Amino acid sequence: MKTDIQIARECELLPIGEIATQLGIAPEEIEPYGRYMAKVPVSLIDEQKVKKSRLILVTAISPTKAGIGKTTVSIGLTLGLNKIGKKAAVALREPSLGPCFGIKGGAAGGGYAQVLPMEKINLHFTGDFHAVTSAHNTISALLDNYIYQHRKDGFSLREIYWKRVLDVNDRSLRNVVTGLRGDGVVNETGFDITPASELMAILCLATSEEDLQRRIENIVLGVTSDGKLFKVKDLGVAGAITVLLRDALNPNLVQTTEHTPAFIHGGPFANIAHGCSSVVATKMAMSYSDYVVTDAGFGADLGAEKFFDIKCRKAGLLPRLVVIVATTQGLKMHGGVDLDHIKEPNAK
Amino acid sequence: MKTDIQIARECELLPIGEIATQLGIAPEEIEPYGRYMAKVPVSLIDEQKVKKSRLILVTAISPTKAGIGKTTVSIGLTLGLNKIGKKAAVALREPSLGPCFGIKGGAAGGGYAQVLPMEKINLHFTGDFHAVTSAHNTISALLDNYIYQHRKDGFSLREIYWKRVLDVNDRSLRNVVTGLRGDGVVNETGFDITPASELMAILCLATSEEDLQRRIENIVLGVTSDGKLFKVKDLGVAGAITVLLRDALNPNLVQTTEHTPAFIHGGPFANIAHGCSSVVATKMAMSYSDYVVTDAGFGADLGAEKFFDIKCRKAGLLPRLVVIVATTQGLKMHGGVDLDHIKEPNAK
Amino acid sequence: MKTDIQIARECELLPIGEIATQLGIAPEEIEPYGRYMAKVPVSLIDEQKVKKSRLILVTAISPTKAGIGKTTVSIGLTLGLNKIGKKAAVALREPSLGPCFGIKGGAAGGGYAQVLPMEKINLHFTGDFHAVTSAHNTISALLDNYIYQHRKDGFSLREIYWKRVLDVNDRSLRNVVTGLRGDGVVNETGFDITPASELMAILCLATSEEDLQRRIENIVLGVTSDGKLFKVKDLGVAGAITVLLRDALNPNLVQTTEHTPAFIHGGPFANIAHGCSSVVATKMAMSYSDYVVTDAGFGADLGAEKFFDIKCRKAGLLPRLVVIVATTQGLKMHGGVDLDHIKEPNAK
Amino acid sequence: MKTDIQIARECELLPIGEIATQLGIAPEEIEPYGRYMAKVPVSLIDEQKVKKSRLILVTAISPTKAGIGKTTVSIGLTLGLNKIGKKAAVALREPSLGPCFGIKGGAAGGGYAQVLPMEKINLHFTGDFHAVTSAHNTISALLDNYIYQHRKDGFSLREIYWKRVLDVNDRSLRNVVTGLRGDGVVNETGFDITPASELMAILCLATSEEDLQRRIENIVLGVTSDGKLFKVKDLGVAGAITVLLRDALNPNLVQTTEHTPAFIHGGPFANIAHGCSSVVATKMAMSYSDYVVTDAGFGADLGAEKFFDIKCRKAGLLPRLVVIVATTQGLKMHGGVDLDHIKEPNAK
Repeated sequence: MKTDIQIARECELLPIGEIATQLGIAPEEIEPYGRYMAKVPVSLIDEQKVKKSRLILVTAISPTKAGIGKTTVSIGLTLGLNKIGKKAAVALREPSLGPCFGIKGGAAGGGYAQVLPMEKINLHFTGDFHAVTSAHNTISALLDNYIYQHRKDGFSLREIYWKRVLDVNDRSLRNVVTGLRGDGVVNETGFDITPASELMAILCLATSEEDLQRRIENIVLGVTSDGKLFKVKDLGVAGAITVLLRDALNPNLVQTTEHTPAFIHGGPFANIAHGCSSVVATKMAMSYSDYVVTDAGFGADLGAEKFFDIKCRKAGLLPRLVVIVATTQGLKMHGGVDLDHIKEPNAK
Repeated sequence: MKTDIQIARECELLPIGEIATQLGIAPEEIEPYGRYMAKVPVSLIDEQKVKKSRLILVTAISPTKAGIGKTTVSIGLTLGLNKIGKKAAVALREPSLGPCFGIKGGAAGGGYAQVLPMEKINLHFTGDFHAVTSAHNTISALLDNYIYQHRKDGFSLREIYWKRVLDVNDRSLRNVVTGLRGDGVVNETGFDITPASELMAILCLATSEEDLQRRIENIVLGVTSDGKLFKVKDLGVAGAITVLLRDALNPNLVQTTEHTPAFIHGGPFANIAHGCSSVVATKMAMSYSDYVVTDAGFGADLGAEKFFDIKCRKAGLLPRLVVIVATTQGLKMHGGVDLDHIKEPNAK
Repeated sequence: MKTDIQIARECELLPIGEIATQLGIAPEEIEPYGRYMAKVPVSLIDEQKVKKSRLILVTAISPTKAGIGKTTVSIGLTLGLNKIGKKAAVALREPSLGPCFGIKGGAAGGGYAQVLPMEKINLHFTGDFHAVTSAHNTISALLDNYIYQHRKDGFSLREIYWKRVLDVNDRSLRNVVTGLRGDGVVNETGFDITPASELMAILCLATSEEDLQRRIENIVLGVTSDGKLFKVKDLGVAGAITVLLRDALNPNLVQTTEHTPAFIHGGPFANIAHGCSSVVATKMAMSYSDYVVTDAGFGADLGAEKFFDIKCRKAGLLPRLVVIVATTQGLKMHGGVDLDHIKEPNAK
Repeated sequence: MKTDIQIARECELLPIGEIATQLGIAPEEIEPYGRYMAKVPVSLIDEQKVKKSRLILVTAISPTKAGIGKTTVSIGLTLGLNKIGKKAAVALREPSLGPCFGIKGGAAGGGYAQVLPMEKINLHFTGDFHAVTSAHNTISALLDNYIYQHRKDGFSLREIYWKRVLDVNDRSLRNVVTGLRGDGVVNETGFDITPASELMAILCLATSEEDLQRRIENIVLGVTSDGKLFKVKDLGVAGAITVLLRDALNPNLVQTTEHTPAFIHGGPFANIAHGCSSVVATKMAMSYSDYVVTDAGFGADLGAEKFFDIKCRKAGLLPRLVVIVATTQGLKMHGGVDLDHIKEPNAK
């Protein structure tokens, strides 16, 4: 049996302009990133078409070490819909570089239900995570600079909520002291992984560049010594930060192993944020497909709840169908079977 | 008089494929990043053509606060060569996002001698700096993890040379303590800006992916407790790090205000590294142009020296011409005129 | 009604030699500290007499904010025993300077049942706490030096249990990072208050200088990288540390408001250590009195348990009588009465 | 030849009361610390007698690794003066515990010119250094607490000059970060050795408890965010700190190997402070002796200068004689002879 990576490498990809054409988008309207990836401007979203498209959510029982395969089912379902003559696209989250490099195996599906080019998607892709990292840490630097410059006016924050982020799994950065040797502000803080950035969550909920800027302005960075919330708008830099995220806001278009369109965009953690791919990617897919399959992080109790309560309510979306993935191996694990024996038949 | 940004915005750009065509490179051989930027695979370098092309170095008197304009002169010189019928390209360093966001004005020339699209070049561009940041910090994380895992074997580094990097001007990160609260290794370290990464210097000297990996393997990370050098090859991760830099190694192609080709690639700091654009960008430009204009950081005493002693010797290059830029304002400043009076005539 | 401090200041003290004489100890055998305090050499303990003396423990119900008064009852009980013609002495813990300076009111009894000179006892007294502080931090410094010097041999501790101590209530010192800027070993550690030092607990259990040294040798400082316990004996400094504690080991003799003898010696915290005054003070008091009253920290469930299970078993002591103090105000608080109304009659 | 320690141990000491009697001070006026040490209340200073007494300063050529022996000469000179029938006392600095435990050999003279009891003087002595340590760190704790409590009022110090002290040679404490994990104020600071405490310098210049308190009030702790000096008087704790130093202010009386009186009191570092024993010890010795020999730290260029410019001017003292110690070994070293050959004759 071929491995995922063999299947991925044997697949001859179509130029991304042809995938756009399938959707009904002219190749000159997209922004290519290499030959097989492109960004589609948010201006191409058509709210009228969104209303007519049918959204399908793929969720799952509580995930286990044996894996569940929401992404693979989502891609496979889209492939099947296309096979029977429906115009269908999939909208998925983009993977974090950090955990990839560590243990997890990427997030691009598996077998004959993958999104491609797998390696590029799993590494830098179109730079969205890098843009979030840059924007996040620029706010951190400007905040520290603001505190430093305004100390003489009696300004200080008694609590600072805004940390820093890196898209690298680095335990040593979780808890750090910054500002030593007289440079900057001495502070006990830490680094989160980029998918945990509030900017990532915001990017995935924003519906336009203006909406993105408004949300950035309202980010609470800390609490001043006299008890007021201190926001990005108080720093006066929301415009500049939005510019840093301008390209990142546009959904990414790639293709499946069967050359059908796939949108991979945004990746907030489901444990601390809402854990769904971006609203603009979902709406873009819905603007140019009759059926759109999307997934949500973790199990139904967490991820589907957040999908309905946060993403759908904010974006005015309503799925027509919910698929709950339950694998035999996952059920075995929940039933107490050891991971070593998970592949053995166990029909009792 | 129009500002740089007005000129830049009024300029109607050609699709990047047409710029490639000018050079004699088929559009399908390049990897577009949006409509006006592309990466050109290093495999397209033709050493025979490199030997025949004429390299011109632009350097300067010691730079002052009044600015000198090496980049602008380099671009202008290329425009002039093209005007008189010569096939000429410019090869320049790419700017750091960090200092840009702070004080400095970007590094894309000025007036009618700019490289475009200016804003994208000054922000994320094609992600090279982000790739270096990721690769650098991944080594940091793997190094700390190695130390942590091998402590029980009596392994420790008595000196660690490898810090972390971010492409953000953040004073508070210059000196930090990491690994607090039991996560990772407690260490006093710091963040440099990405152009100061040794990976950036290496990327700009490497001539192929194999050469890049060899150089990465030899990076000295620290000194073990028994006095031996500890290198990336001892971590066993040079291959993975090279993969993270694979795309970043390909030179970036953009255009000037007069639609002539420009390569913008690599940006090591001249104070701590050699301060020149990449060897592969210079060679790529020389493979497809009869004249290639390039510049080197700081003044002739520092930047031109490093250009000749490091870049040229390693790459087997020899400029046919050296242009030394000296502006009246720069000479006035060196002569003791105050910045406030620098624009007044002073002919004595 | 007179305040405690008024009563203390009006009391005309006897020279400490006269108090020694009352006990049957020649004045030239004690070591005076000022006119009213003295150290009595441990060599004067007479185990035969200890066996004949009667030990009385004063413990209490769970303490409340309203206070309970174990120390005051202990002193009062001794005064009463002397009044009715018994030869009785009290043996109490010495107070920490740190919390004194903060909130708590010292630990020298109250009203007409105080030990004197109150102010000196509550401040530096005979220097016992300072000696423990010095000895403790000397071990810390020698440990760090050992780690630093033996790093090249591959020595490291994967866990360090030994922190530092100060007899000052300093929140900022609870969690610190030491060894910055290349001086010493970078480590995340902290300061405890001196009564929490393991040396304080040891000092209160030791029966002689030799026993003290043996106990110091066995202190576990940390765990080596290969999983072995690293002790003070591995540092080879137990002898020097014992010398630093030589004087501190001798019990302190003072007097009550009625000029009867009182031993005030040792003060380990009851929450983390055994919370009783020293074994040598109890035995010294028992060597020269027919009745000795002593107390234990916190309530009977914690302090009396530790007194019986640790101090009595290690020292071969057995109280003839246990007094459990229960105040009306304490009972009211346990019953739910608010502190503001605690002084009102509440007989229901 | 007997070692210093053999000579010290063979010497049968007189009770400290007899030494006081020699000086003309009644034994009941002093405060004994053990049998051979005592504190003499500052109230016993007699300014009239001070004026009539003759002060002799012992200083030296620049000290070398071979040692010079100012202390030994000072003691020896006093012994000689007593031998020829003059009433003479010596006034010296008390040693720090920290460096003693490290390398240096204590500071109690040598051979038959020692002050005794040597071991006690070199360890805790009468607790003066411990009192300075306590008082200094109490200010540190109260300062941090003040900053913490007043943050909500916009109070902050943009520079903090006041660090912490310990009388232990601990490299790892030189540079620390305090206030981690939310306890207290995060700050990059450090520990000095106790002799470097400003309180130690003040204690050695103060002439009475009132003068001591006045000097403590004026200690500058830092600079507020709006550029004002922040002093101990702004903390409102100078009274409490003075109480902690009350006993430490009284000079310590001991005896020489020939049972003549010696005052050992105060020990500020000569490199950062004025490096002389206390003003009150000098004046106390002068109140009860016709000749008083005292020394000053380091060589004549540093220590004698500070003695004249700071101690003498502040205290209204004027030496009648200055002795400059120059040893053959010291001169040899200054002349370039290696330490290994320093004991060989070298008469050229």
